[in-house]
Amino acid sequence: MNAQGIRIALAQVNPTVGAIDSNAALIEGQIARARDEGADLVVFPELCLPGYPAEDLYLKRHFLRANADALARLAAGVSGITALVGFAEPRVASADVQAADAPAPRRAHNALALLRDGRVEHVYRKQRLPNYAVFDEQRYFEPGSEPSVVEIAGVRIGLTVCEDVWEPGPPASVEAQAGADLIVCPSASPYFRGKRGDREAMFVRRAREYGTAFAFCNMVGGQDELVFDGASFVVDASGEVRGRARQFHEDLLLVDLDGERARVESPLPDLDEVYAALVTGLRDYAEKNGFERVLVAVSGGIDSALVALVAADALGGGRVTGVVMPSPHSSVETQDDARSIVRNLGAELVEIPIAEAMEAYDSALTGALPDGVPGVTAENLQARIRGNLVMALSNAHGWLVLTTGNKSEMSVGYATLYGDMAGGFAAIKDVPKTLVYELTRHRNAAAPAPLIPPTVIERPPSAELRPDQRDEDSLPPYEVLDAILAAYVEGDRSREEIVAAGADPDVVDEVVRLVDRSEYKRRQAPPGIRITAKAFGRDRRLPITNRFGG
Amino acid sequence: MNAQGIRIALAQVNPTVGAIDSNAALIEGQIARARDEGADLVVFPELCLPGYPAEDLYLKRHFLRANADALARLAAGVSGITALVGFAEPRVASADVQAADAPAPRRAHNALALLRDGRVEHVYRKQRLPNYAVFDEQRYFEPGSEPSVVEIAGVRIGLTVCEDVWEPGPPASVEAQAGADLIVCPSASPYFRGKRGDREAMFVRRAREYGTAFAFCNMVGGQDELVFDGASFVVDASGEVRGRARQFHEDLLLVDLDGERARVESPLPDLDEVYAALVTGLRDYAEKNGFERVLVAVSGGIDSALVALVAADALGGGRVTGVVMPSPHSSVETQDDARSIVRNLGAELVEIPIAEAMEAYDSALTGALPDGVPGVTAENLQARIRGNLVMALSNAHGWLVLTTGNKSEMSVGYATLYGDMAGGFAAIKDVPKTLVYELTRHRNAAAPAPLIPPTVIERPPSAELRPDQRDEDSLPPYEVLDAILAAYVEGDRSREEIVAAGADPDVVDEVVRLVDRSEYKRRQAPPGIRITAKAFGRDRRLPITNRFGG
Repeated sequence: MNAQGIRIALAQVNPTVGAIDSNAALIEGQIARARDEGADLVVFPELCLPGYPAEDLYLKRHFLRANADALARLAAGVSGITALVGFAEPRVASADVQAADAPAPRRAHNALALLRDGRVEHVYRKQRLPNYAVFDEQRYFEPGSEPSVVEIAGVRIGLTVCEDVWEPGPPASVEAQAGADLIVCPSASPYFRGKRGDREAMFVRRAREYGTAFAFCNMVGGQDELVFDGASFVVDASGEVRGRARQFHEDLLLVDLDGERARVESPLPDLDEVYAALVTGLRDYAEKNGFERVLVAVSGGIDSALVALVAADALGGGRVTGVVMPSPHSSVETQDDARSIVRNLGAELVEIPIAEAMEAYDSALTGALPDGVPGVTAENLQARIRGNLVMALSNAHGWLVLTTGNKSEMSVGYATLYGDMAGGFAAIKDVPKTLVYELTRHRNAAAPAPLIPPTVIERPPSAELRPDQRDEDSLPPYEVLDAILAAYVEGDRSREEIVAAGADPDVVDEVVRLVDRSEYKRRQAPPGIRITAKAFGRDRRLPITNRFGG
Repeated sequence: MNAQGIRIALAQVNPTVGAIDSNAALIEGQIARARDEGADLVVFPELCLPGYPAEDLYLKRHFLRANADALARLAAGVSGITALVGFAEPRVASADVQAADAPAPRRAHNALALLRDGRVEHVYRKQRLPNYAVFDEQRYFEPGSEPSVVEIAGVRIGLTVCEDVWEPGPPASVEAQAGADLIVCPSASPYFRGKRGDREAMFVRRAREYGTAFAFCNMVGGQDELVFDGASFVVDASGEVRGRARQFHEDLLLVDLDGERARVESPLPDLDEVYAALVTGLRDYAEKNGFERVLVAVSGGIDSALVALVAADALGGGRVTGVVMPSPHSSVETQDDARSIVRNLGAELVEIPIAEAMEAYDSALTGALPDGVPGVTAENLQARIRGNLVMALSNAHGWLVLTTGNKSEMSVGYATLYGDMAGGFAAIKDVPKTLVYELTRHRNAAAPAPLIPPTVIERPPSAELRPDQRDEDSLPPYEVLDAILAAYVEGDRSREEIVAAGADPDVVDEVVRLVDRSEYKRRQAPPGIRITAKAFGRDRRLPITNRFGG
């Protein structure tokens, strides 16, 4: 038998960080299903058993012990199939007593257990540990050093984990030289826009370079700011994709390299993919944290409209409450649009006017601010009154508040801390404003009738915190702003480079200044879904105290 | 001449992250001063020129270029002395185009430049890069591999940087074997309680092991959550401390290993040391971020009393505003105490009653919460009204709001997000409640007359958000709570281990549950000063979505 004779199952599952027992049950169920489907080998994602990224849980001895115990129990039940399960392998106990600030011991390997015939037959340890972007694996894991080629159903199979394959060289090159017919690569490879295609193309290159088939089994689902997009696949030694699983959904992909059996799912078009990432991230944050219902302050503007749309698609409109909070500065038209959005989505509508609370603050501040409340302070107060009201509903009912700021606003600090930034999850915080428009139009077009009234999309953006306010009074047009932000935030370009590429120097200076001085606000923002190659959060770590301009 | 013949200057300075030009000016001034004092060698802290930790600034090419250019200018001015200056050495340019998610290139070395006779004569590159606790150096730097022994004033001197020495072995052992008479170790070693003594003891061990003198030059000052405590020193080959600089202050320590000239500062007693760390951290956060004045909501409770004390000691009472915000639940006694504290510190007093705003919210919420506002929701509203009022003053005047939560509260979530947690800097967020008492008593005792009225210290702790409320209605006594938190949060002990050590199982379960479920709150908390071996923030990174209990 050669590589073509094996039936592989890629179990693209959605584990939950820390839920070791239920992850084990999920794995057990998929092992049984794969065996029923006649698979010789079933592959699970990287660190599937403890969840990924479990961050400093990987430093806790009792967490490592719990996942090792669960692995042993899983192994005992395996027969008639071989399973490859990602887990955090505890290292041999190191001394407990340490000098203050001496290097902390890394107590685990990022490992892959081969389960067969009721036992853990072999363990492969990941060798290349990413420590950039959102990844901190050198904080947690000790790298392995041994390549592994194992025999399953008579086929020679090389073992790797995620990053191991992203650069040419060992361990994959060594395993290929040692005669591996297939290299499996269980992964936890998080989504950003455009990554699926790049990733698959990279594996196609490796397959051709080494003359070896590759099986990539990815995690799926949301974990705090990350979304794993699935899209697992098998490429043969010629670089042809022989099977591809769904994106953003659990799947069990069965592939016979030599046979008819191969399902190749078509990739989602770009905007559908981004939208699916948002829906998945929001759904999993709500579900995995046990929220029955989410709450959105719907203003009649496009940002809150998109958040409400995503929430309704993620959880069903019946689990969404839209809160409309008119002030004396709110126009009748935007308020009517806000109510239409809530109704169109089948969500609950709650109305709370804020004029009386605004007056109470003005009155309370008379002594402390005898010259009156300055303009921006008054605007922030309005936003904070609304923040308090949605938080009161959240506290009273246990609902999750979704904030509505987009990436353009979060970049330049065009948002009120403790006001519109108050909430548990910031669904579109990594979505630039120009993409907010694209996504809303796209989702609207896919519905039988527009869910978002066209006036919401056409009206010039305004925070409506003072009469006739427009975003463009304070900010450059969003097309200009987003282009500069892409270069400065995502591209780490200097002020000079951005100007040299054609942007207006004064505008660049102002944007850079706003981005830099808003770091303290972003640090207090709720988590939100990463959809770009550089999101705020673990991905971009800048000091607050920072005198470097640009 | 042997090692005893050299005069060393340790320039324990306080640079600012990103302020490359002013850091260069600071270094230049200290070089001149050291030369005037007859020093042969002046040593500066690790990464002194760009600042530390500059986090993702170290990934920006233009930042690296700016610091390299500044180093070249500095070098040109050096004559009559040798200077060792920490900088981020740009690596030879690597390719700019990368596959998505391929390993990001680390573009710099954490390096030490030897400046002599108008040029950069030699560069040493740090070999051991800490990537645990608050450290992420493997994200930024490529390790060096070459030990360095250089000759200065006829003496053989080994070069290391901070972590290089914290474990036995290369590069220090190799440099000692190569005949180094003295090993210098420029560092940026952040403070936590008790670390100074452990650190010095470690260097004493190394000196005896290798039979070589060591010179440790530490950074001083605050940077966001970290405080560098200085306390630089020289130990001779027998392990005797021959010179020691001040803690928490800039200093230029001159040491002739063979001569009379050696100043050995006495270490601060424990509580003075912790208090000095808080004062330094608060002062530098305010000064380096350009705040003229800070604002504290003074409740008459002990936490806000300590924060106001630290603020007055850091900036002078004339730069502090105390805001007293009585509600119908505030007792006359606590309000009087609050006013006394503000007056005793020479701070400005502002009073803003909140009853009217409370009524406005009750009225606004009548429709949405027809059964009335539930108890905890009403308590949170009061805290948030106060949060909005201090933020209104902050917005109107550009003042920094100091929050008043202690570590015990931050651990179990006994604080209101956007309420008492609203502000720019959380001075005592790493100070357990029991230590809040100790520090306040200690500072009171050092004053000619008590600055904090004894009733503030003696009254049972209460948030005063409902009639007759006591913290102990909701939480275990603080002595019990703090002991469990020390084991669970700082010690990473399991629930079982804590119970086995004698704690009440039900209490442990409740505390663990509260700590785990409050992660989302801590993620939105302002930064504050690290004084323990494990603070919240970069030091303890846990997922919000986390089903692992304990």
